Amino acid sequence: MSMLVLSGVPESIIDGLKSAGVRVVMPYTKIFPDGEQYIRIEEEVDSCIVLQSMYPEQDRRFIELYLALEALRGLNAKCIGVIVLYLAYARQDKRFLRGEPISIYALMQPLKLLGIDRVGVIDVHSESSLRNLGLEVLNVLPHKYMIEKSGIKVEFVLAPDKGALARAKAAAEGLGIPYDNLEKFRDRITGEITMKEKRLDVAGKTVAIVDDIVSTGGTLAKAIENLYKLGASKVYAVVSHALLVGNAIEKLERSGIEELITLNTVRHRELPKWVRVVDCTELVLDIAKELGYRSV
Amino acid sequence: MSMLVLSGVPESIIDGLKSAGVRVVMPYTKIFPDGEQYIRIEEEVDSCIVLQSMYPEQDRRFIELYLALEALRGLNAKCIGVIVLYLAYARQDKRFLRGEPISIYALMQPLKLLGIDRVGVIDVHSESSLRNLGLEVLNVLPHKYMIEKSGIKVEFVLAPDKGALARAKAAAEGLGIPYDNLEKFRDRITGEITMKEKRLDVAGKTVAIVDDIVSTGGTLAKAIENLYKLGASKVYAVVSHALLVGNAIEKLERSGIEELITLNTVRHRELPKWVRVVDCTELVLDIAKELGYRSV
Repeated sequence: MSMLVLSGVPESIIDGLKSAGVRVVMPYTKIFPDGEQYIRIEEEVDSCIVLQSMYPEQDRRFIELYLALEALRGLNAKCIGVIVLYLAYARQDKRFLRGEPISIYALMQPLKLLGIDRVGVIDVHSESSLRNLGLEVLNVLPHKYMIEKSGIKVEFVLAPDKGALARAKAAAEGLGIPYDNLEKFRDRITGEITMKEKRLDVAGKTVAIVDDIVSTGGTLAKAIENLYKLGASKVYAVVSHALLVGNAIEKLERSGIEELITLNTVRHRELPKWVRVVDCTELVLDIAKELGYRSV
Repeated sequence: MSMLVLSGVPESIIDGLKSAGVRVVMPYTKIFPDGEQYIRIEEEVDSCIVLQSMYPEQDRRFIELYLALEALRGLNAKCIGVIVLYLAYARQDKRFLRGEPISIYALMQPLKLLGIDRVGVIDVHSESSLRNLGLEVLNVLPHKYMIEKSGIKVEFVLAPDKGALARAKAAAEGLGIPYDNLEKFRDRITGEITMKEKRLDVAGKTVAIVDDIVSTGGTLAKAIENLYKLGASKVYAVVSHALLVGNAIEKLERSGIEELITLNTVRHRELPKWVRVVDCTELVLDIAKELGYRSV
């Protein structure tokens, strides 16, 4: 059995898989002069798991996944599941406004036609959106793992909004410490975010804000500033997928963040010293085993 | 009934449709800071045809189409068919080498899940690849139309390879003139193209080479040079979709091409004087009517 690793997957994960004795198969890929992708699986593959990550260049990475699954079909290879380290388009999991698509449906539904019914993910924005498609979903909540691996000492776990409360609960209960959530309001037209005022027992404490994605850093920076106002002594952010687009790094730096703990689920550009990347190869291997991966 | 026009469609087609009295609906689209696409259909749509073109940025355009169809589903709107002016990835319609995908399957199959079973195309690379997916295909061969609209006088029609012979036949028989084909060999590993030597009765004649796509211009330039060697007096290229990537324009200029006649099926950058763009709105309207479009 092998793992077919597509081009969104960071090098550090590939190295980790190889060190763990996984047979890693990487297809030959190129971009034609007109911009079309080409993929070819040159090695023999009988049964496998396909591994991909959807950032950056989300659209290219989805199309690459479709092409890879079609190529496997041509080889009569069995794909026992797809693991997506970071699943893009997962935040558009509802019709927030009339006339919108449920983007994650449009993009994940094709996998079923391509023979996939089991999907592994790390901290997907919403599990239910995938289950509603009839996909069996293995989702890992990695925050406790990230806190432990990074060695930070945390006394309080906070979700920046209600949507992330399950993440805070899982991490806090695992660590035996209290948790709560802030309340965020996003204007669906302007995109602007406001935080409701809320009393929290964080004075003098080291707090970890847990979330799935940090993109432009707006929500996270506001939550951090909020916590310092409430008297927190140190505020960490423990966020699975660090996209850090635009001036996210500057915004977070200004917020007084102690450290950002994240995973290598996406390819990062150069990061400042206060960002610590925890390797998630172990989590990937756990998911793979649950999907039925055997190293023979 | 309306036409939902997506962002790959050239302005000139949109203007043409509006002039013809079509109710054109254009969704609101944006790109999030992290690169994800957003689409929203703000107007009321009951039943419609969706119009898209897949160049440039083929992957974005396919994903946009999936998102638009999902949004229509949310509106309970009926999409009676999709018209794709230029269908990308259509050249990868076979497994030329073991381990390759049939890319056009991977990319067009999702349409079926999104409720589409009828597709209109202008000069698709291969109709059969779409039919094999169980899609009903309306394909227009536009070369006779292009020759007549441009007013060029042609005495001989030539296909640059066997694959384009049906195009040459349709145009030549329509015009009542002779036709033939060259033979091309493409090395599937290096991508290099060689032309077989062949005698053709073109001495002193005005010849039109007909094809579906000109991308880097390599095949076309070689065919033109070949024809001048055989004594042709003027060589036109009549090619439906002019992608003209890399140094295609320089290559064609050096080949001694008289004119390139093409359609506005894709968004063009600035073109030299010897490229003539024939408006294909009329063809789009013909396809739409065959798909069941009624202007009420």
